[in-house]
Amino acid sequence: MVKLEDLIVIFTFVGALAALLFAALTARKVLKFPEGTDKMKKISASIKQGAKAYLKRQYTVVAIFFAVMFVILGVMAILGNLTPYVPFAFLTGGIFSALSGFIGMTIATSSNARTANACISGLNKGLRVAFGAGSVMGFTVVGLGLLDISIWYALLKYVFHLGAGDITSAMLTFGMGASSMALFARVGGGTFTKAADVGADLVGKVEAGIPEDDPRNPAVIADNVGDNVGDVAGMGADLYESYVGSIISACALGVVAFGSFNAMALPMIMAAVGILCSLIGTFFVRTKENATQKQLLGSLSRGTNFAAIAIAIISLPLVNICLTGKFGDFSKIGYYFAILAGLLAGVLIGRATEYYTSDSYNPTKKLAGKSETGSATIIIGGLGLGMLSTALPIVIVAACILVAYFAPNGFKVSTADVNAGLYGIALAAVGMLSTLGITLATDAYGPVADNAGGIAEMSGLDESVRTRTDALDSLGNTTAATGKGFAIGSAALTALALMASYINKVKEIGGDKITDSFDLMNPKVLIGLFIGACLPFVFAALTMESVGKAAQSIVKEVRRQFREIKGIMEGETDPDYATCVDLCTKASLREMILPTVIAIIVPIAVGLILGYQSVVGLLAGATASGFLIAIFMSNSGGAWDNAKKYIEAGNFGGKGSDNHKAAVVGDTVGDPFKDTSGPAINILIKLLSMVSIVFAALVVNFSLL
Amino acid sequence: MVKLEDLIVIFTFVGALAALLFAALTARKVLKFPEGTDKMKKISASIKQGAKAYLKRQYTVVAIFFAVMFVILGVMAILGNLTPYVPFAFLTGGIFSALSGFIGMTIATSSNARTANACISGLNKGLRVAFGAGSVMGFTVVGLGLLDISIWYALLKYVFHLGAGDITSAMLTFGMGASSMALFARVGGGTFTKAADVGADLVGKVEAGIPEDDPRNPAVIADNVGDNVGDVAGMGADLYESYVGSIISACALGVVAFGSFNAMALPMIMAAVGILCSLIGTFFVRTKENATQKQLLGSLSRGTNFAAIAIAIISLPLVNICLTGKFGDFSKIGYYFAILAGLLAGVLIGRATEYYTSDSYNPTKKLAGKSETGSATIIIGGLGLGMLSTALPIVIVAACILVAYFAPNGFKVSTADVNAGLYGIALAAVGMLSTLGITLATDAYGPVADNAGGIAEMSGLDESVRTRTDALDSLGNTTAATGKGFAIGSAALTALALMASYINKVKEIGGDKITDSFDLMNPKVLIGLFIGACLPFVFAALTMESVGKAAQSIVKEVRRQFREIKGIMEGETDPDYATCVDLCTKASLREMILPTVIAIIVPIAVGLILGYQSVVGLLAGATASGFLIAIFMSNSGGAWDNAKKYIEAGNFGGKGSDNHKAAVVGDTVGDPFKDTSGPAINILIKLLSMVSIVFAALVVNFSLL
Repeated sequence: MVKLEDLIVIFTFVGALAALLFAALTARKVLKFPEGTDKMKKISASIKQGAKAYLKRQYTVVAIFFAVMFVILGVMAILGNLTPYVPFAFLTGGIFSALSGFIGMTIATSSNARTANACISGLNKGLRVAFGAGSVMGFTVVGLGLLDISIWYALLKYVFHLGAGDITSAMLTFGMGASSMALFARVGGGTFTKAADVGADLVGKVEAGIPEDDPRNPAVIADNVGDNVGDVAGMGADLYESYVGSIISACALGVVAFGSFNAMALPMIMAAVGILCSLIGTFFVRTKENATQKQLLGSLSRGTNFAAIAIAIISLPLVNICLTGKFGDFSKIGYYFAILAGLLAGVLIGRATEYYTSDSYNPTKKLAGKSETGSATIIIGGLGLGMLSTALPIVIVAACILVAYFAPNGFKVSTADVNAGLYGIALAAVGMLSTLGITLATDAYGPVADNAGGIAEMSGLDESVRTRTDALDSLGNTTAATGKGFAIGSAALTALALMASYINKVKEIGGDKITDSFDLMNPKVLIGLFIGACLPFVFAALTMESVGKAAQSIVKEVRRQFREIKGIMEGETDPDYATCVDLCTKASLREMILPTVIAIIVPIAVGLILGYQSVVGLLAGATASGFLIAIFMSNSGGAWDNAKKYIEAGNFGGKGSDNHKAAVVGDTVGDPFKDTSGPAINILIKLLSMVSIVFAALVVNFSLL
Repeated sequence: MVKLEDLIVIFTFVGALAALLFAALTARKVLKFPEGTDKMKKISASIKQGAKAYLKRQYTVVAIFFAVMFVILGVMAILGNLTPYVPFAFLTGGIFSALSGFIGMTIATSSNARTANACISGLNKGLRVAFGAGSVMGFTVVGLGLLDISIWYALLKYVFHLGAGDITSAMLTFGMGASSMALFARVGGGTFTKAADVGADLVGKVEAGIPEDDPRNPAVIADNVGDNVGDVAGMGADLYESYVGSIISACALGVVAFGSFNAMALPMIMAAVGILCSLIGTFFVRTKENATQKQLLGSLSRGTNFAAIAIAIISLPLVNICLTGKFGDFSKIGYYFAILAGLLAGVLIGRATEYYTSDSYNPTKKLAGKSETGSATIIIGGLGLGMLSTALPIVIVAACILVAYFAPNGFKVSTADVNAGLYGIALAAVGMLSTLGITLATDAYGPVADNAGGIAEMSGLDESVRTRTDALDSLGNTTAATGKGFAIGSAALTALALMASYINKVKEIGGDKITDSFDLMNPKVLIGLFIGACLPFVFAALTMESVGKAAQSIVKEVRRQFREIKGIMEGETDPDYATCVDLCTKASLREMILPTVIAIIVPIAVGLILGYQSVVGLLAGATASGFLIAIFMSNSGGAWDNAKKYIEAGNFGGKGSDNHKAAVVGDTVGDPFKDTSGPAINILIKLLSMVSIVFAALVVNFSLL
């Protein structure tokens, strides 16, 4: 009989290759659409050129970081503090993550003009192209993620003949590589895109009074480049990290809890099956011509709903097949409930996000009304809204943790086994992300539509085209809210699973030396908790500061061009777009270093000074406060954005009114909130755990206290 | 030989009465100063009348709450879940806390016109009156606090003949009464003051273009009333709660750790001695005529520095005398270091606050510069500044916890006893607040100076008088920063001590039933941590929302008056001040209910559903995130305020420039940050613990999970 532990590799390779093949075929189909007029081609080309130039320089900087880390990890491996696979696993995580971003961005920059052009013939055709581009990105991310996992699994098991425990140990390292890369991509890209956006808006819209995406604005190309390097390349690397992180942390906990390949098989096979469900789901995303906005959204939802329901059903036999042997004491149906809880929690957090940030609901409508008493009240209102919006997701995640942890034990609370329960939490995260292929597709198509709108505007296409791209873009805002729910919910669950892996690692290394519990009355744990809870604040501050600094340099440059280059405002001379792109590139590369370095150094330093107990406190504190701040910032930002759009749609005085100006201030404050700091914190909380795990031996053996 | 446990009562009564006597004498001296012209008297009278009317209605609402709680506690006492003293102790805590606020406010409203009048003859005389009023408040708070403690100690020990453990148990309950009252006072007063302030500024300054404190502004009296009910009465109740909370939590832990009256004596005697040191310190606050601003600040600092150094020295023999007997294993000098660590941490957090919020330093100067690119960038900058400013205080508090916990054990980290260590942390909080008499005096004089400025403006006194009151006011901003450092630092330490008391209480009630540890890998603890960390966010959101709502009603009313009452702008007709005061009163009373009720219900509900483990997680989460959010909000608000003042002083374009307008938006956003939400969170984190302790029996006996 073929063993399950060998079947894993077949499943995951098939899943990974299916995803990549589908991505390639979809890419070919998308690229067959025409790019439109020469002007559109020219604009699209300069966006693509700027984005590629940025990524090239970003990768150069990141390569230095990876080289340094490779050497450090190598030395540690030689000294016996790490297994020799670690440095290489670290590298592949980084490379695959970067690749996800790069491929996603390439297809996105190749599809923006095509989407604009397709919108000339109708909304539906536009949706097809944009959603196609999103699908390429979505399936590239999951395909590459599962491929990396498959390759390492095969290599470590069949070439180096390692056991389950050692395999998951090595795998956690490529999580660290992926997280580091993701953080660079998110912070760098996020700084770029928001600096350009804020800079372009402040001088263009507010001071010079020209509309958004006006070709006379020198920062307009930088703004569009930013959408691609931030919202596409950054998001690709980010979700690659989330996806891979959730799977390997579940594998690691499964092995610790049950010591078998079976517990490791479940998350990997679920990921593979999830890809197939997502793939089939994409075929549901089509609709008749002349569809209304609501019908369009319905067609997108049909795809994601199909995938979610399919994986929910198929998980039951999967759990049944994988969890055999030592699992006698734990109910399989309990683990199935854990998976369902994860799936449901993702959807519910998405819904909560939508409720707080969409202008179809009261909170954002009311927020828009606060513009009537000026920008101060809309800012206070938005901050309050974001803070209040943390309550529902916290309750949802708490309920999910409760179910996922205790269900496997039949809710016999007092006798629950820690690792078996935490495996349930990790499975919940895997359940949440199993349909990432299609949820990411619906998410990633937004920036493409956004860019298409820019190109339509700049190349002077008919007003109706812009209306269509705007419809697509606004649809994208709703799906993005759902996407954020998954990203943030899975981050919290994965971080908890990783924290558990850290403790297991510490116990494995320290053996009898590890006598302390991680009790909250232990002052080391408490101090760690305080420091950890502070990190997301500092991180948010640094990234906002970066955007502010970079934006100011753009503001000055745009003002200079308006002043010095004659004929820009009359449309006679082209502004100097390249300088703005260059300024954004330099600023964001400079600014992305410090936050990432802090995320890596702080947990190691805290561990070396205060000991491993503080590290556990740090991880718990960072996860709790990071989850809250990420939701707070994302939702405040989203609500301001949509409140502004609600006013632009003719409410509370409409475009150009004083209320609108107040709302623009809110939106500008929200830009770094929702697109730089907020999403980066999702990555931060996982990177902290990964770093702690990789450097656990150092901390256990050499800490001061 | 007279026993130490009997000497306590003599010491504390002497300390308490000395403070109250000094307050009374100072009040007599202040009230001898003349109130100035009839116009000044009239304005001062209407401020006083509005403030008293507000407090009267506030107390009526709060009385209902206290009556309900008294009945609930009474029923629980009858059912045997509480000792019979608890309901009464709860009441006295509330009454004394309210009294502190009331007396402080009475003297403050009686001194504002006197300060303005004194400023006619010179800056120094003005300082004497204002500082005198502040001293009355400072010494009333500490005097009443220690009096309440002394009375209960004497009553429980000599009338009811209770042991040390039962005495501290009952005392913790009046902490809950004090905290509830403080929260009402802070939230209600904070909403009133900021609603009036924001409302007056938005319509008066921004829309109508009239200066601050202009008598034509219908909200101007409400604004001045607000300073008194918020910054004075609210602060009085708040610091009463901090002071009493720190002492009783140290007493309670001392008894648990060492089971003797001796460990209980130390914090109480330290408080009494601290009062005497503060008292002597006030005599150092005098300076030659024609002193510069720097010399004035120097004279204030001389007073607080003397008190701090004196208590630092005297603590050594106090520790030596009190800690005898069972303390053999723990080094007395170690506990002395814990006290010093607390004193030092308070000063350092104050310095950090000053660095981030004073316009003498770079952060605020740079923030002012961000106004050049508009209100959005100064808002982003201020939020970033506040978030970043959490890092230093976290490190300071972490270091203080480390020293206070481990020093008594000679830094033999692995063998430290939990309760003995936590007693050190509680002593650090007592050390920090031991000189509250004088630090509060330097803090509370600020609002008096602020009001004096308003009266000077409204009654048309000479420009030079306003300059002098402004100098006093700006001095007050610096001392307020220091005061905030003490308030927030002590809140974190006290909250940890209370958390420990909760755990001890749970163990005492549950006995063998309590098998679980409070390990971070326990999902109940983790869920509690998440929920707890969320509470300060929700709380901040609700209080900001309250200010926003109340301010909007003021904005509408002021606009209505400008529109409907003819001759206001020409100065021919008096506006209808009373309606604005009334609106603020109603709004703030309505809005203060929900946050307080949440603070009381959530820990009980979480306990009843998830069990005591979750409550511990909740307290830890709320303390960590509450500490961070309180600092973030206070410092962002302070920095915006001072950035605006820096511009008004002639930098970056000065008053009336576009930059100034942008800075005013920042300041307005900062108003509820620094004066409503931020300070209220300090109280919240302690109230949560107090409530948990009082309802511990209910949770241990009846929880679901």
